[in-house]
Amino acid sequence: MSTPGGRGGPLRLAGVGTALPGEPVDNATLAGRLGIAPEWVETFIGTRTRHFAVDLNGGTVRWTLEDLCTDAADRALADAGADPDDVAFIVVATATPDALMPTTAALVADRLGIDGVPVYQLQSGCSGAVQAMALASSLLANGARGQKPVGLVIGGDVCSKHLDLRQDFRAMPPSQLVNYVLFGDGAGAVVLSRAPGAARALLTRADHWLGGLGSAPGQRVEWFGQADRYSGRPAVTEDYKAVETRVPVLAQEVLDTLLDLLDWPAASLGHVLPPQLSGRMTERITRKLRQGLEWEEVSCVAETGNNGNALVFLQLERLLPRLGAGGRAVGIAIESSKWIKAGFAVEATG
Amino acid sequence: MSTPGGRGGPLRLAGVGTALPGEPVDNATLAGRLGIAPEWVETFIGTRTRHFAVDLNGGTVRWTLEDLCTDAADRALADAGADPDDVAFIVVATATPDALMPTTAALVADRLGIDGVPVYQLQSGCSGAVQAMALASSLLANGARGQKPVGLVIGGDVCSKHLDLRQDFRAMPPSQLVNYVLFGDGAGAVVLSRAPGAARALLTRADHWLGGLGSAPGQRVEWFGQADRYSGRPAVTEDYKAVETRVPVLAQEVLDTLLDLLDWPAASLGHVLPPQLSGRMTERITRKLRQGLEWEEVSCVAETGNNGNALVFLQLERLLPRLGAGGRAVGIAIESSKWIKAGFAVEATG
Repeated sequence: MSTPGGRGGPLRLAGVGTALPGEPVDNATLAGRLGIAPEWVETFIGTRTRHFAVDLNGGTVRWTLEDLCTDAADRALADAGADPDDVAFIVVATATPDALMPTTAALVADRLGIDGVPVYQLQSGCSGAVQAMALASSLLANGARGQKPVGLVIGGDVCSKHLDLRQDFRAMPPSQLVNYVLFGDGAGAVVLSRAPGAARALLTRADHWLGGLGSAPGQRVEWFGQADRYSGRPAVTEDYKAVETRVPVLAQEVLDTLLDLLDWPAASLGHVLPPQLSGRMTERITRKLRQGLEWEEVSCVAETGNNGNALVFLQLERLLPRLGAGGRAVGIAIESSKWIKAGFAVEATG
Repeated sequence: MSTPGGRGGPLRLAGVGTALPGEPVDNATLAGRLGIAPEWVETFIGTRTRHFAVDLNGGTVRWTLEDLCTDAADRALADAGADPDDVAFIVVATATPDALMPTTAALVADRLGIDGVPVYQLQSGCSGAVQAMALASSLLANGARGQKPVGLVIGGDVCSKHLDLRQDFRAMPPSQLVNYVLFGDGAGAVVLSRAPGAARALLTRADHWLGGLGSAPGQRVEWFGQADRYSGRPAVTEDYKAVETRVPVLAQEVLDTLLDLLDWPAASLGHVLPPQLSGRMTERITRKLRQGLEWEEVSCVAETGNNGNALVFLQLERLLPRLGAGGRAVGIAIESSKWIKAGFAVEATG
């Protein structure tokens, strides 16, 4: 558990930036490429568009995760009015790094011209962006490298490494097909600081907790080494029913716990950033969380697809212009791989 | 940069544990299996034995990384006299997780019966164990979850996912063959705490810095998704010449920087834990670092192979019984994937 506000003063969210590869791919285009009915995607997934780093036709990789993370970080630094020389450390969260080594974090640092500072790369699913903010908060609380004022936090995923387009999708069971229509690619970044300066908002808390002792994983994403190339194992498996059942419950737990830790009345919330599994799932979760309250939902998944570690940053980018004076928001992310609960709180400055 | 000693008192290294899979595999056995000359391994690599999680003959996976990390963590907790209920957080460092999701960290927590706490998994090469200790130090410095006294830090790698044994090794160039004889599998763990209690030693610093701006990677380890199965790209590539040239220089920089930050005279060092790339490389690095001083080298690679994120823990396990009253030691790890410099300092208690 991390308490960003607890030590060293408020944690400034000094800038935010995101990067989505290419043009949005709509359901008609995706369904046409897979040879399935677009209505199925609309009805069961509820996601309207997504972005892919690979060319859907030829399979060519057009953007790496490094490309997307670098673009997002560049934009976040510009938004914060910060320079690569100001960066005390980098934390990158992703489930789908370009390679196991070198890390995408180290390569992004190189692209940004950053050297001589620590970089961390968190292996993580949808809770990773929150984990990365919690880690950054801890590093900034310690006041290490005081001469450099900001921490750079990046999250992103390129899920399309798992899209094998040379298959007969009409013969694929829905439980596997779902993986081809649920996900998207993208990256986002924020600049955090405890040093005095302008802020888009304050990051008041960032917390994450294991929440599934003894439970089977809700999702498994494999990577294959040289020795696995002959294995017939699918790269992605998902217990979509378990995800549907458990994620709304865990999301509620996170919201309740955060409000309790923050000592914020539920009615004081202006915005909620719910988990972004798919357009349809997010609608369900939001209905459950609503409980007659008036807060505004801030979501992106219907337009961006589930792009994992990028989602929270895409939501934050949408939140900040709407966060009025005195505004309070809570964001929730659930990692269904092993039921990790994550949440964060944002407040308007001043 | 992290300063474990800087806030909240000394950081106790309360326990250590390691796990190596199966019996050691000697050069005659390995060379026999690959159909190459054992003398080549002895001369150029200088590693005498290593442990593999896969059966060299049938290719069966006998231990997962999760298995090895769980065993190492169990032993470290026992060594510390700590219970899974005492664990405030888990940090796992690895280059070779069992899957991309769920993380090995979450699955190890489950195996240990740990729930409701944050877990982090760092994607990292040989510097990961130090990164994980630095992160743990930061989390403990913030005093979060004060009711739970200890942090559990684990590192390990199962490199044998990249051993494709269905090849003609006699036709393989030495630059590729080296990857089949350099690496091994294993895991290690330490229990860290700022709460009062018994300690094996104190962890005085743990630091890591990017050190290769603009330089090409010295190693690249791929992972393959579903869409990559048809690619002919090798899983592991290494610029062994660059590694040979640069790592001793970077290791010297780490030692000099640490002694400077610690304000320790070089002559006060009782032990040095040098980088563990291979038996031969470690000899070279140790010669360079020695500079006429009397410290004792603590190495393991000649017996364990380069098992990445496990190495530092294997060295610590060997160090602790030898660390006499007032003893001081420095450990150095270099990640050649993108030239990350990492180091830590250990002192006897009291």
